[in-house]
Amino acid sequence: MSAEIICVGTELLLGDILNSNAQFLAQQLAQLGIPHYYQTVVGDNPERLKQVIEIAISRAQILIFTGGLGPTPDDLTCEAIADFFGVPLVERADIIEDITRKYALRDRLMTPSNRKQALIPQGAEILPNPTGTAPGIIWQPRPELTIFTFPGVSSEMYRMWQETTVPFLKSQGWGKEIIYSRMLKFWGIAESALAEKVSSYLNLPNPTVAPYAAKGEVRLRVSASSASQAAAQELISPVEKQLKDIAGLDYYGADDDTLASVVGELLRSAGETLSVAESCTGGGLGQMLTEISGSSEYFWGGVISYDNSVKVGLLGVNPEDLAKFGAVSATVAEQMAIGVRSRLATTWGLSITGVAGPGGGTDTKPVGLVYIGLAGANGEVESFEYRFGAVRGRSLIRHVSACTALDNLRRKLLSSVLNKNV
Amino acid sequence: MSAEIICVGTELLLGDILNSNAQFLAQQLAQLGIPHYYQTVVGDNPERLKQVIEIAISRAQILIFTGGLGPTPDDLTCEAIADFFGVPLVERADIIEDITRKYALRDRLMTPSNRKQALIPQGAEILPNPTGTAPGIIWQPRPELTIFTFPGVSSEMYRMWQETTVPFLKSQGWGKEIIYSRMLKFWGIAESALAEKVSSYLNLPNPTVAPYAAKGEVRLRVSASSASQAAAQELISPVEKQLKDIAGLDYYGADDDTLASVVGELLRSAGETLSVAESCTGGGLGQMLTEISGSSEYFWGGVISYDNSVKVGLLGVNPEDLAKFGAVSATVAEQMAIGVRSRLATTWGLSITGVAGPGGGTDTKPVGLVYIGLAGANGEVESFEYRFGAVRGRSLIRHVSACTALDNLRRKLLSSVLNKNV
Repeated sequence: MSAEIICVGTELLLGDILNSNAQFLAQQLAQLGIPHYYQTVVGDNPERLKQVIEIAISRAQILIFTGGLGPTPDDLTCEAIADFFGVPLVERADIIEDITRKYALRDRLMTPSNRKQALIPQGAEILPNPTGTAPGIIWQPRPELTIFTFPGVSSEMYRMWQETTVPFLKSQGWGKEIIYSRMLKFWGIAESALAEKVSSYLNLPNPTVAPYAAKGEVRLRVSASSASQAAAQELISPVEKQLKDIAGLDYYGADDDTLASVVGELLRSAGETLSVAESCTGGGLGQMLTEISGSSEYFWGGVISYDNSVKVGLLGVNPEDLAKFGAVSATVAEQMAIGVRSRLATTWGLSITGVAGPGGGTDTKPVGLVYIGLAGANGEVESFEYRFGAVRGRSLIRHVSACTALDNLRRKLLSSVLNKNV
Repeated sequence: MSAEIICVGTELLLGDILNSNAQFLAQQLAQLGIPHYYQTVVGDNPERLKQVIEIAISRAQILIFTGGLGPTPDDLTCEAIADFFGVPLVERADIIEDITRKYALRDRLMTPSNRKQALIPQGAEILPNPTGTAPGIIWQPRPELTIFTFPGVSSEMYRMWQETTVPFLKSQGWGKEIIYSRMLKFWGIAESALAEKVSSYLNLPNPTVAPYAAKGEVRLRVSASSASQAAAQELISPVEKQLKDIAGLDYYGADDDTLASVVGELLRSAGETLSVAESCTGGGLGQMLTEISGSSEYFWGGVISYDNSVKVGLLGVNPEDLAKFGAVSATVAEQMAIGVRSRLATTWGLSITGVAGPGGGTDTKPVGLVYIGLAGANGEVESFEYRFGAVRGRSLIRHVSACTALDNLRRKLLSSVLNKNV
């Protein structure tokens, strides 16, 4: 028994979008232990799509389609599938009702073209789409063959997969040997340095340990294959502990943890609060912190002091120091942190000022130079200098700056916890 | 004549990596005007690879392989191709020499396993790899069929494509007809509504017009196939103009334009400045605005007033109104906009307050309810109410809120320009 992933969309053939849906589905199938040997991409063309179905049913028993469920005439996945198996499409009143309700929630009326999304092959079950208008289908057009369809919009597909497809697959007795993974996350260490530290783990058979690097962060995926999640966790657990011990403070969290969520938990459990003052990140640090639901408990807000007048006016940065040291300096970072902390009356004040580029760099203050300020109780203040390098580009420099600010606060909060425990 | 992309690698089937090679090759083929209708992903398995070749040669005349050229035993693309066409592999002395030289440059000795990379099908040409050790091949195993192989390492493939493959394709007379596209972007209209307005354009043969939707934005891709970019632009130009006329103010920009860059251009040309006050977006609006290099010319900064104390203390929101109407209300949005505008002394003040969820919603103030405030000269202030719906989720509600705030300012700035011109 094996699955095949079929992604439908001319935009994939034109290279307009990256096929992240195929990666998501591949990971999910691997986790469920359902083998899959082929992925096919085909355009919005019914004849070619039918040829792809013909090939796929000769080599797989589960076909997973993404894309082509939208309301426009070039969305024809459902039509082509029904046509291939010689079954008519039927309009489902419950889908019409669901679409009408979703439009009403947004104060909008369903358009005639949306009716198309209510057509599914006779005999197919609806695979509910909680967020979008296009539902998918679960259909057994013949024995030993199951078809799933998903919209191309990734966020919609993810929820449909987790909420309906995984339980359905398990109910069929598929996915018995599961692969369970933990993604360990690290900040402040290079991929090659971490890989060397843990080199003896990189050739383990089960669990396996594989390093990844992305946007300044390094990850180790620890994966175990076993009959149950509990058994897999038992295999992973000692290895995970050893890897954390080796990495020390560079390890910050696992799986869904982010630097912002980890910092948030530390602040929440200490009963402390945070405010931010941002120059070159322009709001990105606040954005990260507030991505966490419930962050209002410990994050009070901040000042985006993009222009120097705001650094002086709203944060109380000394204009003479600003002129003497420049906006990108340890002094100004510290005064920004002190200023926002006292004005917002929080436990901590965290600031960022730097040259994000591509313009504005000089010999002494090159693109990628960033200062982070951290103010705490009793007028205590620290600053940290980083040279992220111009080659990383504006967007990545800003992202890494915000993450590094959070990482500094994380290490500070952890050392406070350690000191209290001593 | 058409091409097929065949990506070889078990890591793709496990979802360990994103198939960015397929996107690169798809874009390149589109630019060269070489049609391609299918992409296939298959693991490091010789029998399945040979089945994929059998299918591919029945529907394409150019096969482009990536992956499986490395020195390890599971790298078997070349072997499987040669085997399929019944041709022996031969060791090429010039490849051995090249690998030896590259290893010497890194002060290393060629390992026995690298010898494998010197084996290519008899009769094939070498496709040189300037950076890595694994060369590709260019091979015509039979008339009307050309095979290219590339390593899976993207950076090596890119250079091999640009330096050798593109000139070769052109020398064969392929890639004469290029495809040129413009991506038109719209905000404030649903995909289905726009598709209906422009329905008569969706079946044009050349240029073609195709709708896309992502994260609240709708796009129309207008693509023309022609002998040159200039000729393609001439085909696109009148259709683009008509589409813009139909969409009116819902059209905001094309290609690399973002709402933030378009708003930035309007502010810059009017010599006006902007500040923001953000509650539920927590800095995301400032982040978007400052993603644009040079935004310091018109964006001065803002206040992240996540906690109500910051709305009162730093923005001057009236505490009685806050208690009476609640933080998520038109009144508070307006006072936030007025407050940030006056404190930062900018032409415009733009504010956002809303319920991003998943918690915090009530019957009268459900998740997804968002108010946007816009303050201008002479104490003028407006507010706008949106119900984005809880189903979209926290992250998307925040994203759409920030974009909608920018869109309101964009429409306001455009109407000022129109009024001045009257």
